[in-house]
Amino acid sequence: MVDYGIKIETNLKLDCEIAYFSKANFVIDSGYKFDDFKIAYKTFGKINNDKTNVIFICHALTGDQFVSGKNPLTNKDGWWDRMVGPNKPIDTNKYYVICSNVLGGCIGSTGPKEKNFITGKPFGTEFPSITIRDIVKAQKYLIDALKIDKIFAIIGGSMGAMQVLQWTIDYPEKLLNAIHIAGALKHSAQNIAFHEVGRQAIMNDQSWNKGNYYFENTKPERGLSVARMIAHITYLSDDAMHRKFGRKLQSRDIISFGFDADFQIESYLRYQGKSFVDRFDANSYLYLTRSMDYFDVVEKFKQLIEYPVTNNQHINYLIISFTSDWLFPTRENKQIVDILNYNTRKVSFTEIETDKGHDSFLLDEPEFDKTISGFLDSKYKKLIG
Amino acid sequence: MVDYGIKIETNLKLDCEIAYFSKANFVIDSGYKFDDFKIAYKTFGKINNDKTNVIFICHALTGDQFVSGKNPLTNKDGWWDRMVGPNKPIDTNKYYVICSNVLGGCIGSTGPKEKNFITGKPFGTEFPSITIRDIVKAQKYLIDALKIDKIFAIIGGSMGAMQVLQWTIDYPEKLLNAIHIAGALKHSAQNIAFHEVGRQAIMNDQSWNKGNYYFENTKPERGLSVARMIAHITYLSDDAMHRKFGRKLQSRDIISFGFDADFQIESYLRYQGKSFVDRFDANSYLYLTRSMDYFDVVEKFKQLIEYPVTNNQHINYLIISFTSDWLFPTRENKQIVDILNYNTRKVSFTEIETDKGHDSFLLDEPEFDKTISGFLDSKYKKLIG
Repeated sequence: MVDYGIKIETNLKLDCEIAYFSKANFVIDSGYKFDDFKIAYKTFGKINNDKTNVIFICHALTGDQFVSGKNPLTNKDGWWDRMVGPNKPIDTNKYYVICSNVLGGCIGSTGPKEKNFITGKPFGTEFPSITIRDIVKAQKYLIDALKIDKIFAIIGGSMGAMQVLQWTIDYPEKLLNAIHIAGALKHSAQNIAFHEVGRQAIMNDQSWNKGNYYFENTKPERGLSVARMIAHITYLSDDAMHRKFGRKLQSRDIISFGFDADFQIESYLRYQGKSFVDRFDANSYLYLTRSMDYFDVVEKFKQLIEYPVTNNQHINYLIISFTSDWLFPTRENKQIVDILNYNTRKVSFTEIETDKGHDSFLLDEPEFDKTISGFLDSKYKKLIG
Repeated sequence: MVDYGIKIETNLKLDCEIAYFSKANFVIDSGYKFDDFKIAYKTFGKINNDKTNVIFICHALTGDQFVSGKNPLTNKDGWWDRMVGPNKPIDTNKYYVICSNVLGGCIGSTGPKEKNFITGKPFGTEFPSITIRDIVKAQKYLIDALKIDKIFAIIGGSMGAMQVLQWTIDYPEKLLNAIHIAGALKHSAQNIAFHEVGRQAIMNDQSWNKGNYYFENTKPERGLSVARMIAHITYLSDDAMHRKFGRKLQSRDIISFGFDADFQIESYLRYQGKSFVDRFDANSYLYLTRSMDYFDVVEKFKQLIEYPVTNNQHINYLIISFTSDWLFPTRENKQIVDILNYNTRKVSFTEIETDKGHDSFLLDEPEFDKTISGFLDSKYKKLIG
């Protein structure tokens, strides 16, 4: 029963849809209330008549709604173009895929760089602190607005995996299948530490100006770039870095005896930092990393699964981890599997052997692709009979 | 045969000795020549008549000459006070311990914050790029100035371990025993990456001012603090961080929904960053991290050890690693052992079981202490018969 205003418009510049909610009375964990907010989203494939083919994809920290096809802002392929599209592992000839930019993001959804509907000015650090639960709650508003009763499968990696878990806790009745990739029941101390250093780099940048840089000539590019570089190291494995870069020099045969990028790994990281600032908002980075740090559903998830009469018994879980992922290592993914198995729930678990680190879920890993398509297709066959 | 000027003075403020070299014709790897330079150092214990009890300690990246006793600048215990002193594992009742501040450092030795003897102004980024080999060469000047013919044992951890290896390559005839702790034959791509991000944080700080901040009111404290925070994460293990901090909140029962330090790990890192800037020079940090990045003696060490007639056959090596050290993991320390063993050289190897990460060599690890004192004492007994 929807008693708030919903308006859906196509945004030509962003090449996606935007759902505007008004009088929504959307109260988040901090106690802040959004009456008006918007969620930018993109869909791929066609919804079938009985709406049983919906796949909802939750993006990671720096992802966006442009899962597949061209990203109109970067003019590059979408972040999971390899995985999502016609005849791809998540086959849009068969499934109707929805992906929305998270609350607090910077690609069209309500977030720190967007106008506060009350003041008419960008939120900046007036934006309220948000949690993964809030992000998921906003997605639920969207799913309701689209009048989708059941999500066939919800899928996400990293911060997206956190959203997947949160969905199974808060709205299990909406889900049939849940694919959780390279995540954990809680953010670890080491992960919080890396995020904290990234935030300090941003907030220490004088151009950050306490978050009020939207009307200035400069933005905290340097700080954001350093934050991205730090994070990027954690997305790769030591072995992958060694294989890809080793101690190879950049464009010289000899070292420069200076602070230019002598080693290829240095230029690579600098490039990663620089290209990131063109597409991402520094305040969003602060808010979203914070939401990940706050994530801890260990107790809630256990309670939910251990309690014999719950409305999430029907969910089929697929948990995937990667051997060389040291940010969300197998042992942390395995905790979820153990809780589910111990309580005889329906769960499949696959650890993919790869040296590509946490980023493996974005990269070419044939076994990973097969695991996902196999799981989806077997469940879909069962569903449609 | 010393044909350059040497003057040794006691510096009361620094509570150590400073050796001034003039007309030294000290040519470093980059081709730059120091005619005048100075090395600050401190000694502990008494040298015996035949000078056979000298232990030379090489400090790590942010270490200094204040190994034992009080550090006059921080008013805290020296960085290895636990290890070095009367009746301690490195017993100054028995041994004469020397530790000098590295070339490029900031505690009295010639480095970017010190006056260029030619211009009379601080070097800043006019300071030449240096290598571990240059650092060791400067130490050799000091050892010669002190008229020490043989070093009974050279010891160092981390960047200090790199110096130990370099000594065994360049001046094996001066050494009897070498203790290499938590190091490697080369700096890995991941380690270079972490250093590069730290340097970017410093150089992105507007107060860095291209290295010319010594006459300004501000210095690049924010950048240096972020660099230190990044590095500090790499010095700890995931397990140690989890055990020490976990997801414990700082001084609240509930989260703040903001960017203050909610978690204890955050306050801890911020404290580490802040206290570091009081005692360390940002430019020194740039130069010394760079010298570590350039370190790669894989080929040289192999050649030296494989060549049957060398002047380093007599050296007894002790290689120590820590199970939870992911910055200089056991496998990298083990490479040194393998090369030595393969060529039937004298080497002992110990891997210490601990969850404290790379920093273990600075912390209370009884087995580690026993390994060092046992090795030293057995070799010393043999020596004095």
